[in-house]
Amino acid sequence: MIYLQQVKQSNMSVILERIWQHNQISRVELVEHTSLTSGTITNLTHELIELNILRETEAVSGTVGRKRVLLGFDPHTFRVIGLDISRSSIELVVMDLNGTIMQSAERDMTGIQGPDAYLKVIRELVADAKKSIDAAGCRVLGLGVGVPGPIDHAKGTIVSPPNFPGWSGFPLQMKLEEEFGLVTLIEDDARTSALAERRYGLGKNVKHLVFVTMGAGIGGGVVTDGKIVRGTNGLCGQVGHMTIVLDGKLCDCGNRGCWETVGSIPGILSRWPHGSTLAELRSAALSGDQEAIKCIHDTLVYLEAAMINIQNLYDPELIVLGGSLYPMLADYMDHVKQRLRSRIYAFAKDRLNIEAATFKASQSAVGAAALLFDYLLSEPVRLLSLSERKVEKQ
Amino acid sequence: MIYLQQVKQSNMSVILERIWQHNQISRVELVEHTSLTSGTITNLTHELIELNILRETEAVSGTVGRKRVLLGFDPHTFRVIGLDISRSSIELVVMDLNGTIMQSAERDMTGIQGPDAYLKVIRELVADAKKSIDAAGCRVLGLGVGVPGPIDHAKGTIVSPPNFPGWSGFPLQMKLEEEFGLVTLIEDDARTSALAERRYGLGKNVKHLVFVTMGAGIGGGVVTDGKIVRGTNGLCGQVGHMTIVLDGKLCDCGNRGCWETVGSIPGILSRWPHGSTLAELRSAALSGDQEAIKCIHDTLVYLEAAMINIQNLYDPELIVLGGSLYPMLADYMDHVKQRLRSRIYAFAKDRLNIEAATFKASQSAVGAAALLFDYLLSEPVRLLSLSERKVEKQ
Repeated sequence: MIYLQQVKQSNMSVILERIWQHNQISRVELVEHTSLTSGTITNLTHELIELNILRETEAVSGTVGRKRVLLGFDPHTFRVIGLDISRSSIELVVMDLNGTIMQSAERDMTGIQGPDAYLKVIRELVADAKKSIDAAGCRVLGLGVGVPGPIDHAKGTIVSPPNFPGWSGFPLQMKLEEEFGLVTLIEDDARTSALAERRYGLGKNVKHLVFVTMGAGIGGGVVTDGKIVRGTNGLCGQVGHMTIVLDGKLCDCGNRGCWETVGSIPGILSRWPHGSTLAELRSAALSGDQEAIKCIHDTLVYLEAAMINIQNLYDPELIVLGGSLYPMLADYMDHVKQRLRSRIYAFAKDRLNIEAATFKASQSAVGAAALLFDYLLSEPVRLLSLSERKVEKQ
Repeated sequence: MIYLQQVKQSNMSVILERIWQHNQISRVELVEHTSLTSGTITNLTHELIELNILRETEAVSGTVGRKRVLLGFDPHTFRVIGLDISRSSIELVVMDLNGTIMQSAERDMTGIQGPDAYLKVIRELVADAKKSIDAAGCRVLGLGVGVPGPIDHAKGTIVSPPNFPGWSGFPLQMKLEEEFGLVTLIEDDARTSALAERRYGLGKNVKHLVFVTMGAGIGGGVVTDGKIVRGTNGLCGQVGHMTIVLDGKLCDCGNRGCWETVGSIPGILSRWPHGSTLAELRSAALSGDQEAIKCIHDTLVYLEAAMINIQNLYDPELIVLGGSLYPMLADYMDHVKQRLRSRIYAFAKDRLNIEAATFKASQSAVGAAALLFDYLLSEPVRLLSLSERKVEKQ
């Protein structure tokens, strides 16, 4: 890319980030909130409106009734598709540029294994979604995909995922890109979940957040200074693999006593030999079964230690908890938070902020769509030209 | 700051970062490595040479013997002073813009307590340093200070430091700024130590690194994408306060079983009732004392768990270990690294990279000086004008 295009892209990026932050903003406010001249802002917003990324709306301001022209994202032209591939389901969402979910679909994949079987379902889901997007006269900007991590980001593959046979090294990103002719990004599902909060959920005004997803496994997604952090090997935020029980059970990752070995759903049930579901454990505890009560008590002790470690190592402004285990934990969270407050630095204790995830089962799919929105905001010129070229090839 | 000055500052920053990365670089290479035009580079490097930040040197290139003009930092004009304030000593270094230590001094502060007594010593040390800097015809760009954390960065104070009576809330930054008439920055000493590696040590080509300092306490400094991360409350990287022993000893921070309670020098000695120094522990273990051997064994078990957590939570490219405990641990590190390799994700095990700190006792003071160098590289126009104003006021 030549120099002038780079400057243009970087200035457009500044404008788009501001508009995302404010939802609606006038050109005058854009001049105030950026270091760009009003001339640059006039030219670039004009171009972004022509490209159907932005649109103007009129608002009447408060007391004096003066009309102001506001800029916001155009919700009518572009769509992004977010897909989440997990061990038990496939979720799809279609979003507009304001982050509104226009359409969603889910398929249960229990008992179904391997990329071929998954691709068959994905093909149907995406074809359906594209059909309605076409029918509405809209265009797809790209496809984001959340997958069980760790992933090799450069290759677009999943790296040796435990309990997910057939996927190790499978060139998922390339396959999907070929299949659908869409700009495609893949990411660890804990990281997409974190991004969903950052862009469309509780994290809009939060610079440092950690998303923790607890279910069959435990994963984490870290946002630092507003940006998703991957780390050197794509392993940043593997909170499920911090040591909680010294010299504990051997974990799939190679370590012993990982939080996941005692705090995930299988980890919890492995400590209670009298049943095979959380519901059974819960009802046994309610009826006074001492072993069930101890199993839940220990689960909370592990959760507390993990939360302390997350707080002291990342110092986030917000920790968001999600995943299929969360609903069971929700009842205990007031108790847990109270105990945590006495265990973190006194001067920071009132700043502890733990919330439940916003998007429930769609969390990772919403974040997968947000991967494309992030791309649009950081490299608009590049994404739009890539997206255009894909359409021409079809 | 008006728009044009901001653009100028941001372009100068790009140039200075590149020069730091390459040590010496030609203008042609700067054009290749940045997105700036050769005109911009000519103008800004000219100005930076006039300001005595950069200087030109001639190099004869390899086979053809052609002379090339290279740009590097000017080591003759500006000096930065780095100071480290700890519970047992005060260290001072004077550095040039190439990161060469021109001068250093140390004072033992064992048994001396409180800001007044410390300020008296700091006054002497800084006055001595300024005298030699003046005598050499150089100018001080500013003063960086490493202190026991946590700190309140906005206020420039230390927040309730354990075992450091009299310092809680003391307006250190303001006092020093008034006292010496220098631009002054303060930072947690684990973070200055990390910055020393990033700028002048093993971290020059490393984007993600964690520095762990182990001594009377255990602290950590985190560099993500090349930048020091503070977190929401200045607590990012408090690795000494991750839970290592579930339901263990109560820690000063409020948590139980923190790594610091068992892995710092006092933590280790609290687990061995037969002596009061590491040297005694070491020699007892060498002479076959089973309790001493177990105490060291357990220390390594805790260290391993902590390293696994650091690796899995931050996924750094490099972990650097330092502090007064490190020399004792050094002998065991080959053994520890071997065990760690079997406990991290198999695909990443060959990428584990743990090294010893570069600057020994001066680590934090060197990093404190690097705070000013960082400031110069990110906001050159602002720092130079602040520094100028301070000189005029004197």
